[in-house]
Amino acid sequence: MKIGIADTTFARYDMAKAAIDELQRWMSASIQRYTVPGIKDLPVASKKLLEESECDIVMALGMPGSKPIDKQCAHEASTGLIRAQLMTNRHIIEVFVYEDEASSEKELARLADARTREHAQNVFKLLTNHLTPEAGAGKREGFADEEPVEF
Amino acid sequence: MKIGIADTTFARYDMAKAAIDELQRWMSASIQRYTVPGIKDLPVASKKLLEESECDIVMALGMPGSKPIDKQCAHEASTGLIRAQLMTNRHIIEVFVYEDEASSEKELARLADARTREHAQNVFKLLTNHLTPEAGAGKREGFADEEPVEF
Amino acid sequence: MKIGIADTTFARYDMAKAAIDELQRWMSASIQRYTVPGIKDLPVASKKLLEESECDIVMALGMPGSKPIDKQCAHEASTGLIRAQLMTNRHIIEVFVYEDEASSEKELARLADARTREHAQNVFKLLTNHLTPEAGAGKREGFADEEPVEF
Amino acid sequence: MKIGIADTTFARYDMAKAAIDELQRWMSASIQRYTVPGIKDLPVASKKLLEESECDIVMALGMPGSKPIDKQCAHEASTGLIRAQLMTNRHIIEVFVYEDEASSEKELARLADARTREHAQNVFKLLTNHLTPEAGAGKREGFADEEPVEF
Amino acid sequence: MKIGIADTTFARYDMAKAAIDELQRWMSASIQRYTVPGIKDLPVASKKLLEESECDIVMALGMPGSKPIDKQCAHEASTGLIRAQLMTNRHIIEVFVYEDEASSEKELARLADARTREHAQNVFKLLTNHLTPEAGAGKREGFADEEPVEF
Repeated sequence: MKIGIADTTFARYDMAKAAIDELQRWMSASIQRYTVPGIKDLPVASKKLLEESECDIVMALGMPGSKPIDKQCAHEASTGLIRAQLMTNRHIIEVFVYEDEASSEKELARLADARTREHAQNVFKLLTNHLTPEAGAGKREGFADEEPVEF
Repeated sequence: MKIGIADTTFARYDMAKAAIDELQRWMSASIQRYTVPGIKDLPVASKKLLEESECDIVMALGMPGSKPIDKQCAHEASTGLIRAQLMTNRHIIEVFVYEDEASSEKELARLADARTREHAQNVFKLLTNHLTPEAGAGKREGFADEEPVEF
Repeated sequence: MKIGIADTTFARYDMAKAAIDELQRWMSASIQRYTVPGIKDLPVASKKLLEESECDIVMALGMPGSKPIDKQCAHEASTGLIRAQLMTNRHIIEVFVYEDEASSEKELARLADARTREHAQNVFKLLTNHLTPEAGAGKREGFADEEPVEF
Repeated sequence: MKIGIADTTFARYDMAKAAIDELQRWMSASIQRYTVPGIKDLPVASKKLLEESECDIVMALGMPGSKPIDKQCAHEASTGLIRAQLMTNRHIIEVFVYEDEASSEKELARLADARTREHAQNVFKLLTNHLTPEAGAGKREGFADEEPVEF
Repeated sequence: MKIGIADTTFARYDMAKAAIDELQRWMSASIQRYTVPGIKDLPVASKKLLEESECDIVMALGMPGSKPIDKQCAHEASTGLIRAQLMTNRHIIEVFVYEDEASSEKELARLADARTREHAQNVFKLLTNHLTPEAGAGKREGFADEEPVEF
């Protein structure tokens, strides 16, 4: 197994370090890291990791700012990440942490770390087909999970 | 016939269970289930079900949250699901239930169950070419149908 | 000539019936009808009509609801219809009637009927290269035309 | 050189006439005109002009209305025009005039005429590689240019 | 190494001049410049630079105006630039400066110059694989960097 990690210099936390650390707790895989300036550079970076570096899956890590233009950039990046997946038939797990999801810088760092680690676990479960037992369970990466609903 | 079911751990109701149960009432088909973390992972999951697992049609099941960012994610996922269909010339029936469509958790569960089941019936009717008699009839999955209009 | 008609069970008026009736007044063409649940299913339905049923052109008929999510769905459907055209180099004439374009159910039915018929005429004129004399004329399908402007 | 002109019956001014007149002042080129109902039909019309009529470049002319849905249509059309260019590696010069850019019908006609003519000149300069001397100059088609900025 | 520079006549500052000057300080590379009217022409211009002029990377330079329609155009251009990258597996570094990011014309010019130069440095670092040491560092091109966050 080879896992690609695409990250940015725009982010304010070293999400890739957390991702690599967490991945290594769960599986022994070769890891290829590729850093680009911002989140809009992640789609082609991820596609290059999948096609040129022959990764089986990629984690695309980014921290969009809080301005409207940053939300717009995140939308464009996400659309591109989905397109890249459809062109390659492989998964790119997007881990985006929005600056306004946290009320302090400390909380922002904690959220970036926790969400990245929980998605690293998702990568492991996805590759080993272990997500179905958690289907419909209201999982929330980086925050407390929601309760499932019943009628 | 082989039917793919793509669902998420983010959802708060086991929509896939309802889909499989309903499909089995209407037809005898082989069913392949594939669970991913969130709705943005559904496009490539659906495409893999169509191309790698050779499904004839896919149901993509998800429950977007109620925040603006969740609406954005749903938009990106829907756009990707349409693109995946155009790349494969096969249908992916999107079944999304928005958290703010229901006024209580019980109602949310009921809606998720009902919409999934009615779309499972659509899958059967689509595969057997039985939808034209209902064309223009104001069908609404999960809620009461609208009345057709006349002049 | 073979003309495809893609329509939905979500719509509240049998637009396909109006389209077929009007097309038959203007030309003798083979017509293939294909009904899907909602407007987001129209892009792949239209592409299948063009590629698998070998239609020369398709009319994609739908009636989006009036909620914000319905506008979003229409946007996704329209984007997909344009993509499908670019993939096939053939026209798909989109005929969408928004529920909030009319002030009563009677007016909604009249609008759906009139817009569909005028676009059926566009299909005929497009296939026979008869639209240029009306270029810049302020044509509005279903409503009164606008006046051309001068300086 | 062969230049394609795609225009609409929805527009309220014969922009194609202005485009053809202006192009003929600047260059001797074969011109192919193709009229469609509305701006959402322009992407495939332009692609057909590029691929089936073998045009070297296309001008896509349209006048979106002033309602929110018209802005949405223009966005979908623009996205499709960019996609068509990427699929063909040739330019499609979009000339859109929004009804609410002008304060009177007379001004709207003048703007449509002027913007079309200035973009016809852009077509000539683009084909002959003459735009670089005007790079960063604040050019505005149809309105007075902006001043370049300095520090 | 061959670097493409795509710029516009719409911009109010000669960003390409700044890009070329800065690139030449950091590396000896062949540079190909291509000027188009506006930012929506940049995606195909960049793709032509990558495919027809065989550039290894492209900088796409533009200055969107401050009106809502300009934001829309920038969104369409950005989406196209990402699509062009996915079609070529090569980077296009987008350098957009929004007119309303600066409070004066002098500041606008300074910002356009600084952001272009810092992204030219990113091009060098990306080509030579030197961005990872700055990952998560809160880099902001044209403005002061943000502080990294910790917990």
